[in-house]
Amino acid sequence: MGQRIGVALIGLGTVGSGVVQILEDAVGRDMRLQSVDLVGVAVRDLSKPRTVAIGSDRLTEDALTLIENPEVSIVIEVMGGVEKPYALIRRALELGKHVVTANKALLARHGQELFALAKANRVQIRYEAAVCGGIPVLQPLQQCFGANRVTSAIGIVNGTTNYILTQMADRSLAYTEALAEAQSLGYAEADPRADVDGNDAQEKIAILSSIAFRLPLPELDQIYREGISAIALGDVRYAQQLGFAIKLLAFAVRQSDGRIDLRVHPTLVPLEHPLSRVDGAFNAVVIEADPVGQIMFYGPGAGGGPTASAVVSDVINICAELAYPVQSAVAEAIDFPGYLPIGEVRTRFYIRLKAFDLPGVIGHFGRIFGDHGVSLESIVQKNPHGEAAELVIITHNVQESQMRSALDEIREGTYLKEFCTAIRVLPEG
Amino acid sequence: MGQRIGVALIGLGTVGSGVVQILEDAVGRDMRLQSVDLVGVAVRDLSKPRTVAIGSDRLTEDALTLIENPEVSIVIEVMGGVEKPYALIRRALELGKHVVTANKALLARHGQELFALAKANRVQIRYEAAVCGGIPVLQPLQQCFGANRVTSAIGIVNGTTNYILTQMADRSLAYTEALAEAQSLGYAEADPRADVDGNDAQEKIAILSSIAFRLPLPELDQIYREGISAIALGDVRYAQQLGFAIKLLAFAVRQSDGRIDLRVHPTLVPLEHPLSRVDGAFNAVVIEADPVGQIMFYGPGAGGGPTASAVVSDVINICAELAYPVQSAVAEAIDFPGYLPIGEVRTRFYIRLKAFDLPGVIGHFGRIFGDHGVSLESIVQKNPHGEAAELVIITHNVQESQMRSALDEIREGTYLKEFCTAIRVLPEG
Repeated sequence: MGQRIGVALIGLGTVGSGVVQILEDAVGRDMRLQSVDLVGVAVRDLSKPRTVAIGSDRLTEDALTLIENPEVSIVIEVMGGVEKPYALIRRALELGKHVVTANKALLARHGQELFALAKANRVQIRYEAAVCGGIPVLQPLQQCFGANRVTSAIGIVNGTTNYILTQMADRSLAYTEALAEAQSLGYAEADPRADVDGNDAQEKIAILSSIAFRLPLPELDQIYREGISAIALGDVRYAQQLGFAIKLLAFAVRQSDGRIDLRVHPTLVPLEHPLSRVDGAFNAVVIEADPVGQIMFYGPGAGGGPTASAVVSDVINICAELAYPVQSAVAEAIDFPGYLPIGEVRTRFYIRLKAFDLPGVIGHFGRIFGDHGVSLESIVQKNPHGEAAELVIITHNVQESQMRSALDEIREGTYLKEFCTAIRVLPEG
Repeated sequence: MGQRIGVALIGLGTVGSGVVQILEDAVGRDMRLQSVDLVGVAVRDLSKPRTVAIGSDRLTEDALTLIENPEVSIVIEVMGGVEKPYALIRRALELGKHVVTANKALLARHGQELFALAKANRVQIRYEAAVCGGIPVLQPLQQCFGANRVTSAIGIVNGTTNYILTQMADRSLAYTEALAEAQSLGYAEADPRADVDGNDAQEKIAILSSIAFRLPLPELDQIYREGISAIALGDVRYAQQLGFAIKLLAFAVRQSDGRIDLRVHPTLVPLEHPLSRVDGAFNAVVIEADPVGQIMFYGPGAGGGPTASAVVSDVINICAELAYPVQSAVAEAIDFPGYLPIGEVRTRFYIRLKAFDLPGVIGHFGRIFGDHGVSLESIVQKNPHGEAAELVIITHNVQESQMRSALDEIREGTYLKEFCTAIRVLPEG
């Protein structure tokens, strides 16, 4: 088995406890785990009761001293937050220790600097758990797609919002009811904004796109973001009638000019597309690449066990390479033409609005869309006998800026009683 | 880029042509491809017209001399067959050349010997393309599941049969019609037996299980095998009414006593299971492991481009390790309690039979099943006004040997007009 490898664990919440359970019970797992020693665990509060059995001699509130322990060669950060783990990981890398982290919020903000620091110190920083928890995505993208040119990575990368949307579709819950249930089940936080507003998905697609396209991490404000809180149960029903499921998708799509289209928003997904069937708290990522075609990775995107699985797999892969020091590669943007502004995205749209029941109402809206270059696939008048006609419209592929100017004109017109929603639809082939 | 790496390609069919297209057009793919030189291509018949542009100076009918060329350090075998590639790969390994092959039939028969030969010569043999074509399965299993104990690998690993079953379900084609269509589209061979009888799936699950459980390759005759040719359109319809899709599944399932249950047969898959939605020529493998849970890999299981993608990814991974010679690990069965006989498998069953319309017919069959310890989940009488009642039965989990003895008694009894089919159902939780 050769040398012993000392590991420090920073954080003992759900994921940290999962990591301890794996490390302390190595039989039947990868042989290399048997040469790993858990040197110590840093926690915020020693007095807090713990669900895992770990002796008090290995628990400390002093993360920095634990990291500096010369027996430690790999530091696992699963404490959460941004600034505190940032300082600790910096220190670990400066000391020449390898780092494994599940912290997408940290990486999306300081990743590029940490990658450079790892390279300068000839150590590795690994973060498979940061995207889609237990699903192997980053490692397969790096190791199994080398023959390909990746054209897109599109995923359901947030389990909370997918749980909410699934309950709306399957059980006709309103958004607020589904959110309350997700909170009571522990799928959503008391303050759910990071999930429902799409921030978590935005951080994940930043990391995923950098691996898929071998580019430096993008700035978060380059990624268009829209959450799910405006999705009405009626939209979910109309979408089903039209043959779609509504999902919060994260997109990283290479354009023909080389620019990358990065965005997060609710999307109508045709029922024959594999992502339409990813339900509940599950995650999935579909990679399109030439020549392999369409590959989907599917599994649990969060949870202590799955996330710990990805963290410890990273530890094992570092152990495997410890005998052969490998430099971390830091992606550099050579001849990269940049990210695509949201206004230039071409996609289909689903539009729902309420119109005054005047003669020629469909013609009126049809003319406005046509004037702005928006071609319609279908327009259906629902509830025709009520006081306001509800119109459900699906467009062909259209440039986002044209759609926005068409909607501006519609909002100013006299036929519109109430604008309800505009949701993007997966584009035509 | 450092040293040049010479590659020899044996075979220039669909997959071989895909490999040439990738190697000769490396820009935009993994950087390491740019240090790979395609030294030569061995073909069976030089006079045959080719779809890829490759100069005659690099084409030869003499595979052995090409392999022996000292410029060649990696040999790619995509010629098909068993005995000829076996001899060529042996020679390559003996000469200290790395080998990449997509040849499942060869590996399932001679793999263990070739792995030992590779280890003795300190070279690698890689075969990602042998299981599920373009879908990365073997590499992620080896690299991303180390923290886990794998409990099962279950997959749709044959695209031909999945295409046939999908057409039966979606378009109400009879088996023979769907097969004929698959043949005309090139999805099935003129002699379709290797696909429809389950041999191809049997070879793939042998390879997949050896990687999932880190065991030597099993003998093919240890793997129970049943094909799809007995599936009637009526079974597909009844299965749909009961909430199932019929799929040809390959199983590798670890039992609590450590034995591995290996088998290939048509299976009723509940519509809420992700494998039920894998349609057409697509493949998918679901890995269950502790603590990660259920992970699915989905994508194109065959075809020139996807298979070539996996072959070339193996070449890239060999290039990545060439600077650091790694010994191929040959799995050894330490304390392995063996494979599970089919009679000891516990699963649910779907049974369809025609009975004479006599009083007490349901009670008659119910008693026989009960006598043999077979507990029923449902029994439905279809076509009750015809001359023969058709009975559709779903059992709870039952031991296969008990089911067989119950069916033997039913076949001998006077109530049975015609025994139609018995298809296994994915077991209860």
